[in-house]
Amino acid sequence: MAASPRSTSKQKASAADPVRPWPAGALARVPGFRTAALHCGLKRKPGNPDLALLVCDRPAAAAGVFTKNLYCAAPVTYCKAALAKSHGRARAVVVNAGNANACTGTQGERDAARMGSLAAKGLRCKPHEVLVCSTGVIGHVLPMQKVESGLAALAKQIARNEPGADFARAIMTTDLVPKTAAVEVDLGFATVKIAGATKGSGMIAPNMATTLGFIATDAKITPAVLQQALSGVIDETFNCLTVDGDTSTNDTVLALASGEASHAPLAKASGASYRAFRAGLFAVCDDLARQIAADGEGAEHTITVYVGGTRTDAEARQIAATIANSPLVKTAIAGKDPNWGRIMAAAGRAGVPFDPEAGALTVCGFDLFKDGKPTAFDAAAVSKALAARDVGIAVLVGDGPGRARYYTCDFTHGYITINADYHT
Amino acid sequence: MAASPRSTSKQKASAADPVRPWPAGALARVPGFRTAALHCGLKRKPGNPDLALLVCDRPAAAAGVFTKNLYCAAPVTYCKAALAKSHGRARAVVVNAGNANACTGTQGERDAARMGSLAAKGLRCKPHEVLVCSTGVIGHVLPMQKVESGLAALAKQIARNEPGADFARAIMTTDLVPKTAAVEVDLGFATVKIAGATKGSGMIAPNMATTLGFIATDAKITPAVLQQALSGVIDETFNCLTVDGDTSTNDTVLALASGEASHAPLAKASGASYRAFRAGLFAVCDDLARQIAADGEGAEHTITVYVGGTRTDAEARQIAATIANSPLVKTAIAGKDPNWGRIMAAAGRAGVPFDPEAGALTVCGFDLFKDGKPTAFDAAAVSKALAARDVGIAVLVGDGPGRARYYTCDFTHGYITINADYHT
Repeated sequence: MAASPRSTSKQKASAADPVRPWPAGALARVPGFRTAALHCGLKRKPGNPDLALLVCDRPAAAAGVFTKNLYCAAPVTYCKAALAKSHGRARAVVVNAGNANACTGTQGERDAARMGSLAAKGLRCKPHEVLVCSTGVIGHVLPMQKVESGLAALAKQIARNEPGADFARAIMTTDLVPKTAAVEVDLGFATVKIAGATKGSGMIAPNMATTLGFIATDAKITPAVLQQALSGVIDETFNCLTVDGDTSTNDTVLALASGEASHAPLAKASGASYRAFRAGLFAVCDDLARQIAADGEGAEHTITVYVGGTRTDAEARQIAATIANSPLVKTAIAGKDPNWGRIMAAAGRAGVPFDPEAGALTVCGFDLFKDGKPTAFDAAAVSKALAARDVGIAVLVGDGPGRARYYTCDFTHGYITINADYHT
Repeated sequence: MAASPRSTSKQKASAADPVRPWPAGALARVPGFRTAALHCGLKRKPGNPDLALLVCDRPAAAAGVFTKNLYCAAPVTYCKAALAKSHGRARAVVVNAGNANACTGTQGERDAARMGSLAAKGLRCKPHEVLVCSTGVIGHVLPMQKVESGLAALAKQIARNEPGADFARAIMTTDLVPKTAAVEVDLGFATVKIAGATKGSGMIAPNMATTLGFIATDAKITPAVLQQALSGVIDETFNCLTVDGDTSTNDTVLALASGEASHAPLAKASGASYRAFRAGLFAVCDDLARQIAADGEGAEHTITVYVGGTRTDAEARQIAATIANSPLVKTAIAGKDPNWGRIMAAAGRAGVPFDPEAGALTVCGFDLFKDGKPTAFDAAAVSKALAARDVGIAVLVGDGPGRARYYTCDFTHGYITINADYHT
């Protein structure tokens, strides 16, 4: 029996409209999980939720991937230590938006620990069973009084089974839309749910920023296997995503597995069931990563860069990342310009050796470049196709087996306005 | 006797005005050299010069550094072959602007060779003694009829000693101002002149772009030593410069030495005279590189990034390049925002290990970050200082001996307008 993922996500990328419907409460629909969220005062707008809890009724298998930035925020350090101490078990994740608790020294470490211990007290579990995430302005000490009252109220919400505000909304900063995705995976003898929520628009900025992602599943899986699946999948999804090439101090993706599904435990990273679970996890993370690119600061186009024909996947990814980060490529797409020169020049400077004569480029289904030369394409027709919200760029550089896919967005006046004009 | 360079450049960076005076005809003031330039029809505006010659009366020692982009234009391939065939000797450089002769297949190779042989015929030298450079739109075949009439007229100008149009103006594309620099170097028994001209505003774009640089000196120097000096200096100047991180198909810097100065030949890359010559060459290339950053597409600020305290210079350069290429740093400077978080986060993700607690940041003379934490700086005062055209960013990450300096410019609406809006 072939195990396979089945997408139940209702928010497939719309071609025209960045504001999309989403399955509200996706995380809380996974057996074993509950969420709660409220406004504690970290965001200025009254009623705008800024503090959230994801709770698992029993200790969940837990895994995490974290920013590689040397300046990592206090919550990142805290989560790593908590996961080590609990041997990959967690009861809850507490998240605040509006203040990233980054570059705040020992005070920040104390505050992250206090957020964990207060949530643990409310949930009657151990402090190291609570994971802590923060996002928002960096370099400012958390207003702990607001956070503390908020946490007390959140614990009551959970105890009374009141969901409160939407979890995916509470973790937003400059995001225009909440971002969730969910799939069901048929493991043969049981259907497993995997749901996720994420936020992130620019990668890092003192007034906004950070990518956070949260995955909940009812799969029965050991922490080690969950970690292995998550690390591999994030490498191909969230790590193949760029808005501006900047990596935040707080970037974190956490996965919790309640184990409520009635299948044989996934205790090794092989076999049909593991592969099906991993494919489902991939589908959720891929959908979330794409939603982040679509909601990139100032984005008017969502761009998917495909690269193939290299010797290895890593080489293909290097070329794809160079294209996806090129300001000239990103401004060309903003201008609906079939600018093959900028794309192929980015490929050519990526540091991966290939035969320029083997280079080929397809944009929105039009062949623009072949055998090392531009084709006689209809520029007006390609420009018209580039009016669509979703743009595909495919570059072939040979006949090797390597391939990669990267998500990005275009570079517009909106990006400059968000990132430069707020201060002038 | 201490040999030392003395700057005669009149166009030191102005703090306010990007349009600066420049020493017209800087290259032609070097003994042994003549220039000529005219409009042959590659640029649209009548009278706007687009074809230029730099001629040395005797075979000059010649050296070159070229783009590492796999898609290198026909003139780049041609120059490499010519330098190899002539064993580093050249009589002339012919340059056109308005068409880069890139991605034009074998036709492009034939056209580059024809430019060389026609110029050689006019100057009565061997074809491989003429170097060829092109800049402008890529992917379009050169209109050779215009180029051929232009070359015939240029040869007449040279024969009659008529300088014609300004060389530095003739090589411009989207540049707002011509860029030249000159120094005199005291070698003890002789004064040597080194002059340069360059162009480049965005690094690459089908409708503009490429960096070209030309150095003329009357020093007596072997081709091998000239090449060694040039490669080293370019690595610390033109290669420590970014406008948008994109590397052109045509990037080329050529140096020609007429040998007319009356000093003992520089036949090895050591000793006081060589060091003085190299320091002079550095001063010219450094000045030119800085002028390119100052004239970056849409630039409102010229930014110099200093990094120190790493284990090696290469590590410092890696951090400096990451900061200089960060869209978030570049938009923050555009917005006069003392955004220490974006700068330190860029340093932290550069891939160079250092102790975050040792990180320190100074912007325009203000200490913004120290011992891994923001200082209590006066944001309004720093923002006021950031109104200056020239911005210095200094990052210290430890007490190692490594250091680097990188030139860049800010990211403004002007950049988006130049690179996206031309097509909409």
